[in-house]
Amino acid sequence: MLTLYSFGPAANSLKPLLALYERGLEFTPRFLNPAVFEHHEDWFKRINPRGQVPALDHDGRIITESTVICEYLEDAFPDAPRLRPTDPYDIAQMRVWTKWVDEYFCWCVSTIGWERVIGPMARSIGDDEFEEKMKRIPIPEQATKWRNARKGFPKDLLDEEMRKVRVSIARLEARLAESPWLAGTDYTLADICNFAIANGMDKGFPDVVNAADTPHLIDWLTRINDRPAVREMFRKSQRESLAPRPKASA
Amino acid sequence: MLTLYSFGPAANSLKPLLALYERGLEFTPRFLNPAVFEHHEDWFKRINPRGQVPALDHDGRIITESTVICEYLEDAFPDAPRLRPTDPYDIAQMRVWTKWVDEYFCWCVSTIGWERVIGPMARSIGDDEFEEKMKRIPIPEQATKWRNARKGFPKDLLDEEMRKVRVSIARLEARLAESPWLAGTDYTLADICNFAIANGMDKGFPDVVNAADTPHLIDWLTRINDRPAVREMFRKSQRESLAPRPKASA
Repeated sequence: MLTLYSFGPAANSLKPLLALYERGLEFTPRFLNPAVFEHHEDWFKRINPRGQVPALDHDGRIITESTVICEYLEDAFPDAPRLRPTDPYDIAQMRVWTKWVDEYFCWCVSTIGWERVIGPMARSIGDDEFEEKMKRIPIPEQATKWRNARKGFPKDLLDEEMRKVRVSIARLEARLAESPWLAGTDYTLADICNFAIANGMDKGFPDVVNAADTPHLIDWLTRINDRPAVREMFRKSQRESLAPRPKASA
Repeated sequence: MLTLYSFGPAANSLKPLLALYERGLEFTPRFLNPAVFEHHEDWFKRINPRGQVPALDHDGRIITESTVICEYLEDAFPDAPRLRPTDPYDIAQMRVWTKWVDEYFCWCVSTIGWERVIGPMARSIGDDEFEEKMKRIPIPEQATKWRNARKGFPKDLLDEEMRKVRVSIARLEARLAESPWLAGTDYTLADICNFAIANGMDKGFPDVVNAADTPHLIDWLTRINDRPAVREMFRKSQRESLAPRPKASA
């Protein structure tokens, strides 16, 4: 039996959701609510001591890290439709792209997202409650990121991250101008893992991702969003709200 | 035919060197000299346009990224002694460790290494020659790192990286206190990829890695260094010098 613990269908949580639907694997989705710090609650830290989603429970064994989970599903269910090539060279090309998104692309996009969404949400929480939540975060860097988001990230850091966003988008556009899919002729985990970060950037970063400047990237986003498994996944998956809490009336 | 382009047996170059020797795969080593920026020369950028080692040439097809190369060798040569488990869960545990070293552990150790070794070397080069070398670097972040190393990294950055080194070493020590090898009962790519960064830290970071504070880590380093394949690899592999250039006499 498979249970996936994740946030809603975006960012790293989107990767295994896409892989599970695309491959037609039955699973129980368990959506956690980041707005109430559910992933730092004790019940979930017993599942993943690092307090991070996604996490996959397969017959009681826990697999963590979104990209590792996607490859695990290939290893554990080799008879379902594959999202990993079979030729060793093609697998390596796929992994260059899944590694790049984890080491570079996801971080710059994440910082901007934290500044825009997590910052206001964190500022809407009172000091005492916020500090209480921070104490439950097992990874020191994660607590630091929450504190920085609440203060607002420094402008020079945000500028540097935006530069990296532009470098990333240019790299994706150049690759998609020469190939229909990132790792070659087939839709693979390279596409899924990069789509998980790039999806919606035409709305969130319209000056960087748009039909005039990045036509191949826009076409790739559209083709993926149009896939039956992707449409079904978005229709069935629960989205959370990260809006700031309403102020208590005086 | 296999040709490995790499620096000497340390850091990311050490990973595929260890995997190739351990698995008894015949290959031609081609050691590049970072002190003369050989990896940014045109002949090598035709092999890897990103100007980074290691890179593996397998019958004319180029595979890049050290961890990807190690997994490629498993996929392409399944009959040689394995360094990747066969059980999907065990493979996932291995990948959590190879991913962590690439995303966290290697970067903090690298910054300290650049400050200590690359900085003095870069300062021993004249301004004009240095700028000429910078122009050939295809990855902007790499050129920035060279410039920062030449200036000297800011103290608060070095302090933060040293904090991460301590976090990393504590994580390795805790794991090795409960398991002989990082991914479980067998020596795998998890050990190879982390050893590539941790080897020599008892000399470079003696206040963090030492027999009193990290006995299990020290024992693990010793066990790996004592492996016949590892001894043979170090004996046969060429080391480069990154010493500052001697000053021209006046």
